[in-house]
Amino acid sequence: MRMAELSRQTGVPVPTIKYYLREGLLRPGERTSPNQAVYDESHVRRLKMVRALVEVGGLAISAVREVLAAVDDPKLDHKVLGEVQHRLGPIHQEGQGEHWQAAHDLVEELLERRGWHAEPLSPPGLALTAALTSLFDLGRGDLVSLVELYAEAVEKVAEVDVNLVNRDRGVEDLIEGAVVGTVLGEAIITSLRRLAHQHASFQIFGDLTERE
Amino acid sequence: MRMAELSRQTGVPVPTIKYYLREGLLRPGERTSPNQAVYDESHVRRLKMVRALVEVGGLAISAVREVLAAVDDPKLDHKVLGEVQHRLGPIHQEGQGEHWQAAHDLVEELLERRGWHAEPLSPPGLALTAALTSLFDLGRGDLVSLVELYAEAVEKVAEVDVNLVNRDRGVEDLIEGAVVGTVLGEAIITSLRRLAHQHASFQIFGDLTERE
Repeated sequence: MRMAELSRQTGVPVPTIKYYLREGLLRPGERTSPNQAVYDESHVRRLKMVRALVEVGGLAISAVREVLAAVDDPKLDHKVLGEVQHRLGPIHQEGQGEHWQAAHDLVEELLERRGWHAEPLSPPGLALTAALTSLFDLGRGDLVSLVELYAEAVEKVAEVDVNLVNRDRGVEDLIEGAVVGTVLGEAIITSLRRLAHQHASFQIFGDLTERE
Repeated sequence: MRMAELSRQTGVPVPTIKYYLREGLLRPGERTSPNQAVYDESHVRRLKMVRALVEVGGLAISAVREVLAAVDDPKLDHKVLGEVQHRLGPIHQEGQGEHWQAAHDLVEELLERRGWHAEPLSPPGLALTAALTSLFDLGRGDLVSLVELYAEAVEKVAEVDVNLVNRDRGVEDLIEGAVVGTVLGEAIITSLRRLAHQHASFQIFGDLTERE
């Protein structure tokens, strides 16, 4: 298909497709003349994925490029999850100070208490430590108790998530599933939590959601 | 206190403080001479909040400015939650097409089924619709069934969240609680879900998290 048809099928405007081509997020089409190229179903699929990561996941172009390199890496197989988590970011460095240390200890204790085989110094472990450190910095150490409740809530969710990825066939599908499931899943969960906040606020305070 | 002391107390480097001052994220200190200013506890508190929003929440400077304007708006009282949600973004426009319509219907049905007093066309309602539309676009409509599970998980979380904000006193605390609770809470939940993915993957596939 020509670029116009690719645009029609994916809903991505032609100038945006050209931008993604320049940025290397989309493989070039097959040249049929010096000024024309044709695209196939693999371009449709990739373009939809790029759009989901950018528009719904809010990923920067550089992050999308990193993640797609993982999807396209033929050497990646069973190590895919760590690689995807690393490339999706955010990347926090190990911190220091009293609050960081207290937060780090909490993360280690939490993982042990729940029996999670998970790495406190992996990207999500460090991101959690950074968030807890911020709560301490802001004098909101009282909120740290929420983490146990949150952990209980996501535990069930994550098990179902991973079982769904498992159903996919082939490594490319597995990686795509991990990327899409992580990014879109996070968008879905944070949106749902905000909608649930509207409801809970309404129950307690009456209508807080109306804008002026 | 001088800027050096402000930097020491918050852990934010002096050049970063100067940048935040230029960007209007921090109120100028009180001038004591043409080249010197002094800062107080309100600067310490604000700076910690800016850092949490930028470093942990990953918010852009422009988004932080928007959110802080809400915190500082003396007219905002009971409408705070809608305002905070709007300013935190992401902002999605209403879409069109078959998939968008199907996703929108799902969101409406979900809210009705769970009895949530929440607005499908509010920013999180549209963000949820956009994420579900992406799942349909990607041919992963099977994952839509997860939404019910996610909704159940966040329902309990959100009720506790809002009750905690309720404990705060005064409007400024209320707004700060909504901002911090939303942003840091999301960082905590998404990190925990990724850690739980490590665990669930280990259970199913063995060690997937090791990087090369």
